[in-house]
Amino acid sequence: MSGHVVALCGGVGGAKLAHGLSMALAAVADSLSIIVNTGDDFQHLGLSISPDLDSVMYALAGLSDPVKGWGRRDETWRFMATLRDLGGESWFQLGDTDLAVHVERSWRLAQGATLTAVTAHLCKALAIGARILPMSDDPVRTRVLTAEGWMDFQDYFVRHQCQPAVREFMFFGAATAHPQPEALAALKRPDLRAIVICPSNPFVSVEPILAVPGIRAAIQQARAPVVAVTPIIGGKAIKGPAAKMLTELGLDVSAAGVARRYVGLIDGFVVDHSDPAPEPLPGVTFVSAATLMSSVDDRLWLARAVLRAADTLVA
Amino acid sequence: MSGHVVALCGGVGGAKLAHGLSMALAAVADSLSIIVNTGDDFQHLGLSISPDLDSVMYALAGLSDPVKGWGRRDETWRFMATLRDLGGESWFQLGDTDLAVHVERSWRLAQGATLTAVTAHLCKALAIGARILPMSDDPVRTRVLTAEGWMDFQDYFVRHQCQPAVREFMFFGAATAHPQPEALAALKRPDLRAIVICPSNPFVSVEPILAVPGIRAAIQQARAPVVAVTPIIGGKAIKGPAAKMLTELGLDVSAAGVARRYVGLIDGFVVDHSDPAPEPLPGVTFVSAATLMSSVDDRLWLARAVLRAADTLVA
Repeated sequence: MSGHVVALCGGVGGAKLAHGLSMALAAVADSLSIIVNTGDDFQHLGLSISPDLDSVMYALAGLSDPVKGWGRRDETWRFMATLRDLGGESWFQLGDTDLAVHVERSWRLAQGATLTAVTAHLCKALAIGARILPMSDDPVRTRVLTAEGWMDFQDYFVRHQCQPAVREFMFFGAATAHPQPEALAALKRPDLRAIVICPSNPFVSVEPILAVPGIRAAIQQARAPVVAVTPIIGGKAIKGPAAKMLTELGLDVSAAGVARRYVGLIDGFVVDHSDPAPEPLPGVTFVSAATLMSSVDDRLWLARAVLRAADTLVA
Repeated sequence: MSGHVVALCGGVGGAKLAHGLSMALAAVADSLSIIVNTGDDFQHLGLSISPDLDSVMYALAGLSDPVKGWGRRDETWRFMATLRDLGGESWFQLGDTDLAVHVERSWRLAQGATLTAVTAHLCKALAIGARILPMSDDPVRTRVLTAEGWMDFQDYFVRHQCQPAVREFMFFGAATAHPQPEALAALKRPDLRAIVICPSNPFVSVEPILAVPGIRAAIQQARAPVVAVTPIIGGKAIKGPAAKMLTELGLDVSAAGVARRYVGLIDGFVVDHSDPAPEPLPGVTFVSAATLMSSVDDRLWLARAVLRAADTLVA
């Protein structure tokens, strides 16, 4: 089946499926747009850092570190060690090769380029075929309300290592942000085949994207089925604080707990084949598949299963 | 003999003698201030780069690359290679460890710190005892008039590798720059023992310092003898374009050609022991010493010779 696929994606976990989709759709030009969360973006040491865009780029370019699960493979840390010796801020790890992306992005942004244009340039340099799009060129900053008060996302995520219990999320700037125009246009394409919500954290990866005006409505009105993939297997998150957040918010720590947040938006939801089928949810068809992506083959396999599922659903 | 010594210094060559002086005077606290040219400073990829301050810091911290003559020893280039792959500007070499200094400096400057404060912080982190002072906290930018028109210094020096013939120099911003207050105060100290003009390029290392209002006058009025060291041996510059510039400006390519630029300012001038004694110059005592600094011992040896010479002269 042909047609354009749009993926919504956060960082590492979502990036794996985005990579799978890019492999599954590689034979056809202009077959995949990936809308990436930029709510995690932040300024650090004067640099503009976009962790999720980088995770997706690195995954699609085959540059991800397979062991750490973040950053680049074969990374070195001489910059970081020297910065530490100089008394610089060392809570956020910047690898020597990763840093080149941050410096080049920051410099181009400072020259007036949009995040979209910078991302397109980097993708071209990394020979990435799929279109990777920030959800918006306007800054949106996720903030987390914890028992210790509101925190910037990276402060919560990296510096506090997700320790504080979360109560609420805010996507600062989202209300006045403009959706990235190509992202919005992709969601409205007549040849749209599927919209895939990658197995990313619903609270801090997917919902910031949905908070950008126009994106949620475009997904709801799209001609294609919307399929989300669970980030929770056996009551645990593969990576990151999704399960911990579900618990702290008093929600069901399960695939169903995530699916419930997407009711009214999705047509299908992929649960892991090792999990029981969830209780029915209005308008949601549950599909079972192997969702754990340990290898690159797993990514392609899951991507194909998700596309197959979408092709059987009606928007 | 005790007392405070002030050195005026540019990049690599001058930094070697500054290192020699710091070793010669290490036993006594607060015995050395090094006023460093910042006319070479520039913005690159959004970073604030101070090549001469770094050369002096690295020399005094024992971090200079002994082979290349610039940058840090045991440097790696993974950032640079990645930046090149990304299509970034690669004409100015940024090593992985060197980059930490640029990022930390840029970040602190962006936060509102003065270049003096940033330099003091970096020197403390690198356990440097001597006081390294920028000539001014205000930006001064050396520009070079060539047959191809005016060029920014780094454009001439690195990108064009000093190929275009020079006609004139301009120190943009110097006329309204404030001299670094501690530098000016050091030149006025009652216990001043000597002012040393290091074997730096007179046109683009020393004269930018002298162009900052108040510095030349403070040197002329100082209570201590002023001794300059030749950057020219046997009609050639040890390093850099000093000899080429003397030729292009129609000046004598010799120690005397350099000494003549300092008449009215210096009391002594150290020529290399392999060169003949120059023709007399008004107010200048010529001293002969081994000025080639191939080893760290040579630096200390020359520093001692310069201090001995100063101690025999009258301001």
